[in-house]
Amino acid sequence: MGGTRIKMALLNKNAEILRTKDIDAQAGLSMEQRLEDLVDDINGLVGSDCKLKGIGIAFPGIIDFESKKILSKYVKYPNAHKTDIPGWAEKHWRIPLLIENDARAALLGEWQHGSGKGCNNILMVTLGTGMGSAVLLNGQLLRGRNYLAGNLGGHMSIDFQGEICNCGNRGCVETLASTWALEENLKKIPNYKSSILYKEETLSFKSVFTCASNGDNIAEKLKLQSLEAWSSGIINLLHAYDPEKLILGGGILESKEEIIPFIRKRVWEYSWLPDSGTEIVAAEQTKYAGLQGMCYLLNIEIFNN
Amino acid sequence: MGGTRIKMALLNKNAEILRTKDIDAQAGLSMEQRLEDLVDDINGLVGSDCKLKGIGIAFPGIIDFESKKILSKYVKYPNAHKTDIPGWAEKHWRIPLLIENDARAALLGEWQHGSGKGCNNILMVTLGTGMGSAVLLNGQLLRGRNYLAGNLGGHMSIDFQGEICNCGNRGCVETLASTWALEENLKKIPNYKSSILYKEETLSFKSVFTCASNGDNIAEKLKLQSLEAWSSGIINLLHAYDPEKLILGGGILESKEEIIPFIRKRVWEYSWLPDSGTEIVAAEQTKYAGLQGMCYLLNIEIFNN
Repeated sequence: MGGTRIKMALLNKNAEILRTKDIDAQAGLSMEQRLEDLVDDINGLVGSDCKLKGIGIAFPGIIDFESKKILSKYVKYPNAHKTDIPGWAEKHWRIPLLIENDARAALLGEWQHGSGKGCNNILMVTLGTGMGSAVLLNGQLLRGRNYLAGNLGGHMSIDFQGEICNCGNRGCVETLASTWALEENLKKIPNYKSSILYKEETLSFKSVFTCASNGDNIAEKLKLQSLEAWSSGIINLLHAYDPEKLILGGGILESKEEIIPFIRKRVWEYSWLPDSGTEIVAAEQTKYAGLQGMCYLLNIEIFNN
Repeated sequence: MGGTRIKMALLNKNAEILRTKDIDAQAGLSMEQRLEDLVDDINGLVGSDCKLKGIGIAFPGIIDFESKKILSKYVKYPNAHKTDIPGWAEKHWRIPLLIENDARAALLGEWQHGSGKGCNNILMVTLGTGMGSAVLLNGQLLRGRNYLAGNLGGHMSIDFQGEICNCGNRGCVETLASTWALEENLKKIPNYKSSILYKEETLSFKSVFTCASNGDNIAEKLKLQSLEAWSSGIINLLHAYDPEKLILGGGILESKEEIIPFIRKRVWEYSWLPDSGTEIVAAEQTKYAGLQGMCYLLNIEIFNN
């Protein structure tokens, strides 16, 4: 369940994707309402030829995996933290449900079926609307006492005297580089009204990168600040966990020919990691990695496969 | 082996401290030379009534625990990274030797014998000449692929467009708040020459805190910047690992009535942790925790106790 789209898929027990359906997130509807709306879509995906055995939800927020509760008050789905999510699956299908943070789910999907295969110590960073992150240590998700561990890469402070982020912390990576902060950051650049970006209705990193490559100086500055902020946050995370592999995913990675080489260069210049100390790769399964990760969790937690 | 003092102790297998000896680090002498000088001191500590079974060294640097090599080129002990340290113990006493990062060793000591007892998920941060850190997860030290994991709290960037640190990274916590950077940071404060601190030959946090409490405005600013920088770095680390407990140690903690409440307040204000989500405590065994930690490592790695 993303901020803008809800991506659904029917998978078999080997995490092979049989059918998919994407719908608009309809931000603003309550979580309870939104889940009820999904019932028909889910039944349609399952059809008459399959039997639904469990549901996994990858959700953009802090998740109590054990009690299956959303802990953060995620604005895109009002009242998500008050919703009885396993109760919904029980009521409609009498089946088990698991819910996990979306970056953790994507990490598990990449580990099992993507660019993380065979590697048990992975840092995953997703660059999308915000910056998500998750960590696998010795083949186990790092969750932490309050289920925060590894998930707050986007809210790492890299500007300790900077502006207060919407999360309450100061100078977070996302305050400096995220889709939601693009407009505000654009307006801090002198002479920003001369940029083509200023005329766009909703700013995206895609347009920032495109305008920059077309010679728009303001877009170039915005792009560079974002690349520097992501790199700094990522170096801090690499130092924190010192993983074997860093997997970069998320929608913005469409510009991966530019982003990944930049981050590799900064890691080489600024970090303590020895040359080839960490492999830095792009995610392979950008679209359904999260669902494949949830399939893995259902298998090991519920079906003991 | 610290930057200014070498603290030695003879411990029995229960990590009880039998005899101690502190000597000057004599910064500048090569590591090989320094180790040779220690032989008489060590033999003196052991005396005729005890038998030396193993040696553990807690060292301020990045350590390859498996191959017993110092990886970082620590300036205080030149050529440390080229020295055959286990060879030295073998040559003089024919006994095993272990070496580990000093913050990791202190964490193990606090875990076994100090304020970390009974808790298997701990973040330790030491505020001394610099800021050290180490992490225990599920009762195991987090070491990482290149032995960096958890040790670089002091070199986390919290000012991504700030000055280049002596480590090559940008805007590290230590660039903003460490004993080695105090003078430079003092000189960035307008009108710094009016401060009593300006007259001191070598600046220390002790004098910064004392002058601040005596009403010296410049010292107050320097104190506040340091507290903010430590807090920001510590919140980033708490988010990264989400441990049960944060233990604060190191020489600067003599001012712990001021430092710990400040950090607690900032964690409460700025972090994502729920109230009482993490216990924040002072280290108990500030002086010999590292040696007790090395005793623990010798017991489990060599003597199978």
